[in-house]
Amino acid sequence: MDAIEVIRAKRDRGELTTAQIDWVIDAYTRGDVADEQMSALAMAILLNGMDRREIADWTQAMIRSGERMEWSALDRPTADKHSTGGVGDKITLPLAPLVAACGAYVPQLSGRGLGHTGGTLDKLESISGWRASLSNAEMLDVLRSAGAVVCAAGSGLAPADKKLYALRDVTGTVESIPLIASSIMSKKIAEGTGSLVLDVKVGSGAFMKTVPAARELAETMVALGTDAGVRTVALMTAMDRPLGRAVGNALEVAESVEVLAGGGPADVVELTVRLAREMLEAAGVTAGKDPEKALEDGSAMDAWRRMISAQGGDPDALLPRAAETMTVEVPESGVLTRLDAYAVGLAAWRLGAGRARKEDPVSFGAGIELHAKPGDLVRAGQPLMTLHADETSRFERALEALDGGYAVGEAAGERLPLVIDRITAP
Amino acid sequence: MDAIEVIRAKRDRGELTTAQIDWVIDAYTRGDVADEQMSALAMAILLNGMDRREIADWTQAMIRSGERMEWSALDRPTADKHSTGGVGDKITLPLAPLVAACGAYVPQLSGRGLGHTGGTLDKLESISGWRASLSNAEMLDVLRSAGAVVCAAGSGLAPADKKLYALRDVTGTVESIPLIASSIMSKKIAEGTGSLVLDVKVGSGAFMKTVPAARELAETMVALGTDAGVRTVALMTAMDRPLGRAVGNALEVAESVEVLAGGGPADVVELTVRLAREMLEAAGVTAGKDPEKALEDGSAMDAWRRMISAQGGDPDALLPRAAETMTVEVPESGVLTRLDAYAVGLAAWRLGAGRARKEDPVSFGAGIELHAKPGDLVRAGQPLMTLHADETSRFERALEALDGGYAVGEAAGERLPLVIDRITAP
Repeated sequence: MDAIEVIRAKRDRGELTTAQIDWVIDAYTRGDVADEQMSALAMAILLNGMDRREIADWTQAMIRSGERMEWSALDRPTADKHSTGGVGDKITLPLAPLVAACGAYVPQLSGRGLGHTGGTLDKLESISGWRASLSNAEMLDVLRSAGAVVCAAGSGLAPADKKLYALRDVTGTVESIPLIASSIMSKKIAEGTGSLVLDVKVGSGAFMKTVPAARELAETMVALGTDAGVRTVALMTAMDRPLGRAVGNALEVAESVEVLAGGGPADVVELTVRLAREMLEAAGVTAGKDPEKALEDGSAMDAWRRMISAQGGDPDALLPRAAETMTVEVPESGVLTRLDAYAVGLAAWRLGAGRARKEDPVSFGAGIELHAKPGDLVRAGQPLMTLHADETSRFERALEALDGGYAVGEAAGERLPLVIDRITAP
Repeated sequence: MDAIEVIRAKRDRGELTTAQIDWVIDAYTRGDVADEQMSALAMAILLNGMDRREIADWTQAMIRSGERMEWSALDRPTADKHSTGGVGDKITLPLAPLVAACGAYVPQLSGRGLGHTGGTLDKLESISGWRASLSNAEMLDVLRSAGAVVCAAGSGLAPADKKLYALRDVTGTVESIPLIASSIMSKKIAEGTGSLVLDVKVGSGAFMKTVPAARELAETMVALGTDAGVRTVALMTAMDRPLGRAVGNALEVAESVEVLAGGGPADVVELTVRLAREMLEAAGVTAGKDPEKALEDGSAMDAWRRMISAQGGDPDALLPRAAETMTVEVPESGVLTRLDAYAVGLAAWRLGAGRARKEDPVSFGAGIELHAKPGDLVRAGQPLMTLHADETSRFERALEALDGGYAVGEAAGERLPLVIDRITAP
């Protein structure tokens, strides 16, 4: 078999055989298929597609390129959640300890932010002492003691996906549903979770801008998980506006702690509880504690404190704050009709909350506090948002990003429902 | 500007701007655009196409990546011919000196064979002492003394094309008419010829298997040449069967010398004379000698001898012969209905006439002599072809390639006319 034969088959709109997919992923991981060959194949896949069997084979081949974790030593079922990423999406932080408090183990491998969406690991690293890198044995210890663990994926998990993701990033081949779905699902299946809830974001601040595109991605991933024996369900949720009132690393940790303390913004609480119920149902935990109760009675907060401490973090430490702030005022009285997720995400990124290149540091304190959300009545001159940055020089470009990103009118505009749809295996 | 922006534009079926094309070709030549980025772009171009303006810009950018030759010091017009390659296509050998004998200068940069089609330089190198590599000054000297020069393109000519061609070869992105047309025409325009006749081959032994594909390539190249100020015309000619009766390096030189001596197979003579008339017309030489006359009176042969001598070759040297021969007999009496160009080309390649990798040597003596052509009456047991190779071990795989490649029947089968059509600028 050779690379040109496989590239030509997909270029000419053929189906790749299982043997071709196994060979090309393995040879690429070993370096026998060159980057320039894989990028030509990725472009052919992006333009000509893959069917369900091909995507399943591609995902399995990426899983087999590395180790596969398993949690059979644990005495309770495992459940995980994956979000396709959005602005202000800190849901993993309250969700993982909440589900642990309700009776399932949550072994979650997370990533860092790139571009305008934040990364769970960057957020948690704003807690003094907290460590993202754990060995498999340490992961098991944290799971046993806290019920939940959120950490970085080791280099042994789906190495083919790591290599391919970096290649797609520089060759214009990211936006392919088969490649996105197989990238996410290869890591989640290799992680060894027994059940998985996908949060597929839709809107300006999300990777998928439209409901049909998000539905296709959700259906593809649910099918992949199901075919691999993982009980998988997806929610399609709104990302036309930011989630919650905090965007930025430490700001989002603070908001997550509010939720765990029984407070927090309504949309964050609603989505956290909804996702927790989905995870518990998928994991088959029927006799556990109800998530709303676990937020009220402090058991979710207890699990959070155990989880942070077990990874070296101090749950009582003061969170970093940026040195400078600037208030953006409401321009006229009325109803806030629009607050665009992408504009807010881009502004937070320019304030220092995100990184342009993988090797850049993030500012833990930088970000945006929102004082109003779409649908709220607002008065001219009232604070609309507070920008946080380490240097005042960052405010100008953040304001440029926000220009046109919000609007005040007479009546609330159209916006997506928080949960748009629920996708299960057919 | 960055590579991802350019790749995305073509991926999403957009037109590339002149500025984007100039930038990406220049940055690729300098190494600022990586191979994996260019291969993704090449696949997007192959699948989504380029329009006439984009192809012209792409060609001009490749020309500007290197030097551009010019022949204004010469006192007569220049004309060149390019064939897209076929089996037994030795036409350049008699044609270049013939056109020189009729009044135009022929500065021809040629290539080597790869795969089942032979290369002009490999054929000429079977003449003892002949050198393919000349400096620009040497080229001018040979042109002045012989009227024609056939040599290898220097590394300074369209370096972007050299780099891109090698990349396309390993990434399944060869079969794109915009990329094929711009690759051929960038070299031919940079070569500085004032007029150009394209011989676009059609059939099993050619790159273009069908008349519509060949027509699209011919029209694209004629438009490119015309837009660049080169008087360009194309003939579409038959490559369903081999051209002439000799396939292989020294065997084809011998047949070319027969044509220059006023003999040779009818199809080779007809195509050589036709192409010569097209070149003279495109060059604006109206008062020169008629090509048929120049073959009869020995003036074309004189030009050939001068051209070979000027590049170090001995026109009187005995040509290399392969050590071993094998005769393939006619299986039954009747009419030879089919003699497939690809089968014969593949057999000659396996006998040693061609190379599998760029760095392999070729056997000068290896190849095939054909004793009958489609339409000829043949008798069972009469020799159909003679195989030539340096080792008898090569015959078996050559015979496998020929299996099913010829047929004897009761009446002559359908075959393409030698000249199928003539394409000029609209």
